[in-house]
Amino acid sequence: MTIKEQLQHKINNKTKPLGSLGLLEKLALQIGEVQNTLSPKIEKPAHLVFAADHGLADEGISPYPKDVTWQMVMNFCGGGAAINVFCNQNDISLKVYDVGVDYDFPAELPIEKAKVAYGSRNMRIEPAMTPEECSAAMKVGADAVRKEAENGSNTIACGEMGIGNTSASSLLMHRFIGGTIEECTGPGAGLNNSQVEHKINVLKEVAGKYNPQTPEEILATFGGIEIAAMVGAYLEAKKQNMLILIDGFISTAAVITAIQMDASVKNNCIFCHSSDEKGHKIMLEYLGVKPLLHLGMRLGEGTGAAVAMPLVKSAVNFLNQMSSMEDAGVSNKE
Amino acid sequence: MTIKEQLQHKINNKTKPLGSLGLLEKLALQIGEVQNTLSPKIEKPAHLVFAADHGLADEGISPYPKDVTWQMVMNFCGGGAAINVFCNQNDISLKVYDVGVDYDFPAELPIEKAKVAYGSRNMRIEPAMTPEECSAAMKVGADAVRKEAENGSNTIACGEMGIGNTSASSLLMHRFIGGTIEECTGPGAGLNNSQVEHKINVLKEVAGKYNPQTPEEILATFGGIEIAAMVGAYLEAKKQNMLILIDGFISTAAVITAIQMDASVKNNCIFCHSSDEKGHKIMLEYLGVKPLLHLGMRLGEGTGAAVAMPLVKSAVNFLNQMSSMEDAGVSNKE
Repeated sequence: MTIKEQLQHKINNKTKPLGSLGLLEKLALQIGEVQNTLSPKIEKPAHLVFAADHGLADEGISPYPKDVTWQMVMNFCGGGAAINVFCNQNDISLKVYDVGVDYDFPAELPIEKAKVAYGSRNMRIEPAMTPEECSAAMKVGADAVRKEAENGSNTIACGEMGIGNTSASSLLMHRFIGGTIEECTGPGAGLNNSQVEHKINVLKEVAGKYNPQTPEEILATFGGIEIAAMVGAYLEAKKQNMLILIDGFISTAAVITAIQMDASVKNNCIFCHSSDEKGHKIMLEYLGVKPLLHLGMRLGEGTGAAVAMPLVKSAVNFLNQMSSMEDAGVSNKE
Repeated sequence: MTIKEQLQHKINNKTKPLGSLGLLEKLALQIGEVQNTLSPKIEKPAHLVFAADHGLADEGISPYPKDVTWQMVMNFCGGGAAINVFCNQNDISLKVYDVGVDYDFPAELPIEKAKVAYGSRNMRIEPAMTPEECSAAMKVGADAVRKEAENGSNTIACGEMGIGNTSASSLLMHRFIGGTIEECTGPGAGLNNSQVEHKINVLKEVAGKYNPQTPEEILATFGGIEIAAMVGAYLEAKKQNMLILIDGFISTAAVITAIQMDASVKNNCIFCHSSDEKGHKIMLEYLGVKPLLHLGMRLGEGTGAAVAMPLVKSAVNFLNQMSSMEDAGVSNKE
């Protein structure tokens, strides 16, 4: 029997009606396959938040001022953001990377200092990143994940902070999965209808301005520094054969980009939630995946992945800890 | 300001886009309202599994033999059932009540002994319970909850074990919310199509045989001993102003029954998941509620409530632990 068949047999013989744990059974099967074992484990889950600014934020495509990026990084360091609360609750280690924030943080601030630039460039004028900046950002993400793997982690999630980053994600989505800019663009952190219209006009202009070809070129042109870091992180996580917990709109844009570079990344991905941000459902359909949660969340920071972690553990736990019908002496179907 | 307005203000001023925690925000609001505080707490969450047999199981309405009820109680005691695993994972205390199992358990077995009868009666022949049996079962549930409240718990979930109990739940659903027997009846623990047809025919016959009027009479006629215990548990939990985590099809049938007796029970209920058992979605629509999870689970035992517990804690935690915009020095919308 293949490991998949052995896992399915183990799942089917637990003391429960066949298939009655629904998505948790599919998840247990996937995790067992990724780890190539009948007794998978979640070891030292780590959450990496990559923060960077976006030049396009100058074009009024977010309801929040750019300063919120560094202010929120300070909030992460103070422990007061949503991602702090959820990582703390669910025993997930949290690191914050300054990969491109337009701010000089105090030297003593407990963040990972890996600034590639003081924000991406304004795409209305020039590509978001030079190829060198994009590669450097990807390397930050890859190095960050390798460090976690060396520390014994086998499960990673990425989050992000960057005012303007739904715009970059919409452009990547548009380019990689082919929806119209209207289908790919939503209110982000809370634009009203006329503001969304303005955002759509800006993104249409940007999308029409360039014609990059390779996934790397597309990422450099339309991405963000933190998004490039996430792409690098996901690619490295696959190399390390880690489980990759995917959050919402921006994380999924990043992983769709990573999948363009290495299709096998998808095997290790657990899609954690369906974001309320317009476009995310289309992304999930494109990938053919069913996410764990549908809570109408759209906060970013990787919060959807962090709140879903207990469900991932539930999948592993039932597989490891439940009795089989035989061991428990429970009669099977008549 | 009312407590509701104060809670909404507190939620809106957290360091996140307005409304971006979706259902978790609604949940935090509800929990704060129930506990009448801006700083709600989940204290000593307790899970009570009520087990009982069903006389109607003699009519071939379940794919599993009746013996599975007592065998699964033994499995609960051995720690090998799904509900053991999930309660253990999520720090929920678990007690198992024999309220009507058709089996004499060893005296030393660590269960709560509260047997009302050796199973309900066969509804094809006579009402499932006498009024006295039904009242006694409700009292078991109420006493069980009161004991938890006295022990300092403010959050309760109920689960059940009883071969045949989706049939009783379908009949209660049919009677209280008015769907046809076909709409109310599904495969339960795994009937095939022709077996479901047989189940529908049996339930139609039973539904037409009696005409009870009050909720108590309807429960005694069509319910099960464990379902009556759950009804009593939910009514008492409301009296104790506890949070009530509702599981799937059977739990929802029980709480719909409880709501007929005291409409205010609903205010304290957190609907934890949408079961894959046919009819549950109709029940949730009837109640006008959006459950937390949609995992395609249909295991029973209260497992949907147990796996949802971390989300309930996430709602409470963000409300208590996240910084406000002011405290964190984060700029608001422009």
